[in-house]
Amino acid sequence: MKKERMAEIQAAIHAVEEKKTINHVYLVGCGASFAVFKPVEFYLNRETEMPTTAITANEFNYATPKSLGEESVVVTCSHSGSTPETVAATKLAREKGALVISFMDIAAAGAPLEKEADISFHYEWGDDIDMSDGKEASLYYFMFGLLKEFNGEEAAKYEKAMEDIHKVGAVVAKNRKDWDQRANNYARAHKRFDGVYYTMASGSSYGAVYIYSMCLMMEMQWLKSQAIHSGEYFHGPFEMTDFDTPFIIVKGVDDCRYLDERAEAFCRKFCDDVLTIDCAEFDMMDMAETSKVYYANIVLTAVLRLHASWLADYRGHMFTVRRYMWRMEY
Amino acid sequence: MKKERMAEIQAAIHAVEEKKTINHVYLVGCGASFAVFKPVEFYLNRETEMPTTAITANEFNYATPKSLGEESVVVTCSHSGSTPETVAATKLAREKGALVISFMDIAAAGAPLEKEADISFHYEWGDDIDMSDGKEASLYYFMFGLLKEFNGEEAAKYEKAMEDIHKVGAVVAKNRKDWDQRANNYARAHKRFDGVYYTMASGSSYGAVYIYSMCLMMEMQWLKSQAIHSGEYFHGPFEMTDFDTPFIIVKGVDDCRYLDERAEAFCRKFCDDVLTIDCAEFDMMDMAETSKVYYANIVLTAVLRLHASWLADYRGHMFTVRRYMWRMEY
Repeated sequence: MKKERMAEIQAAIHAVEEKKTINHVYLVGCGASFAVFKPVEFYLNRETEMPTTAITANEFNYATPKSLGEESVVVTCSHSGSTPETVAATKLAREKGALVISFMDIAAAGAPLEKEADISFHYEWGDDIDMSDGKEASLYYFMFGLLKEFNGEEAAKYEKAMEDIHKVGAVVAKNRKDWDQRANNYARAHKRFDGVYYTMASGSSYGAVYIYSMCLMMEMQWLKSQAIHSGEYFHGPFEMTDFDTPFIIVKGVDDCRYLDERAEAFCRKFCDDVLTIDCAEFDMMDMAETSKVYYANIVLTAVLRLHASWLADYRGHMFTVRRYMWRMEY
Repeated sequence: MKKERMAEIQAAIHAVEEKKTINHVYLVGCGASFAVFKPVEFYLNRETEMPTTAITANEFNYATPKSLGEESVVVTCSHSGSTPETVAATKLAREKGALVISFMDIAAAGAPLEKEADISFHYEWGDDIDMSDGKEASLYYFMFGLLKEFNGEEAAKYEKAMEDIHKVGAVVAKNRKDWDQRANNYARAHKRFDGVYYTMASGSSYGAVYIYSMCLMMEMQWLKSQAIHSGEYFHGPFEMTDFDTPFIIVKGVDDCRYLDERAEAFCRKFCDDVLTIDCAEFDMMDMAETSKVYYANIVLTAVLRLHASWLADYRGHMFTVRRYMWRMEY
């Protein structure tokens, strides 16, 4: 991670540390910039006593939580820095007196999202960047600052994770390479499949499959895909399981792993088309044991993107093709 | 609502009132008994300052929120009173010192869910009951008690809503009758459709479409169906919209209504197969204006169930047919 990025994220963390009373953290965005917050929501609620809520921007705007006020920290994200709902949320939160931190693509620096916030940080974007400077890594670096602030007892673990941020680039690159042929094979085998791709995950991994299904598959491939929480699988969706119904099952490495293992074990009994992405198999190289659990999720995001990229390639449907977005007002 | 039901729900509310310090409310269940809590989560966060989280039971069990403890209120629900994940959550919450309230079908009275809880209440189940005694109505009656406790300023409104509980049965029956032919027509027109039924809603209505898609359609009809949050539609899923892709769009009457209206307006431009269920059109009869917004959601649940019932009828696939549930251990 570049020095200037670390500096601006540290400044955002410092603003939180300086704040006298905090009673709620809200994480606000739309689509992939909403779901990117799901692991942050998970970890803050799991490891600290700070109530933390990820919420899609227009629900935040129209059905504003009553707790929102001077004792809130609100973090907003929009890739372009100009998503109208998220800009409105940023403005609203500031009017209510919250400390508002926004983040966006570095190419969007100075965008409305930044103008409406108290303080901002930025990330880099693209397949060729060092992923230590990417969207997830930047957010995680910030998250570790919050975790440390709200759970001082485990400060050493979070400081170690912050040190390990520099290893994210190499770790992601290594696992992309390791998974490339598998993702290629899967895409080739499925290139003519036109049914629903079910995806499953839980805990800190759920956001990544939400992005995969909602954005990479539905939005960017016009393919049917649905993200199911592994804990909910047995309470409805599992009845869809059949020998020819593809399931992509993520086995995470956080405390919810058993949920994924149980879903996978059942699914494999009745379905012949299961792809397991086991985060425990990722090569996390020389990261500290305690850091691996967090950063595995960034590798997962990259591996899922690789899968979608190969599908896009075999199907001749580029990620940038849209029916509606960029083509009209809505 | 029967007197004995009101009495046991009042006792549960009283237990909350008696509790000295409350810092978080957790709503825990699986599938339909998880999603039934979504409107409660919505209203508690919207109208009170009490942090409230609905969470699927095994995520609660394995990745227990750090805040869970003596200052928590935990509400758990399982229709049979014996869903293992929810029973385990009930037990765990009590071990942590929380006040634990469970509710279940009256036929399950005395089940493990009740044994593990501090206090319980029950509901009736079936198509022929007075819906004032149903699952949603019982939960809402309890919810109004919490809203009153955590937001005393609006006590009069919640007391009025509690009085109106007796009107729920007649209101639901009336709207079922009004919608019957429409639901029949829709099901007849779609009986051979084998693609994905997309459903959309937001705010307090989202839980109802989650239940419709996950339980009534996938679990009980083996039909492909996905619940999309109206606020997320424009940030991914809307690219799936096409002239022949069915969308069932709920327009709610809470503060999120604009999100649904916006999604419907766009969807209708490009899709010829949109069914709108407008909660503003429900006949709420002589309920107080302030009560209608809450109870419209119970009517919505009944109307969605009617739609699924007619599909089940035309397709000859009864609600009770299962591939896996009731047929094996999992």
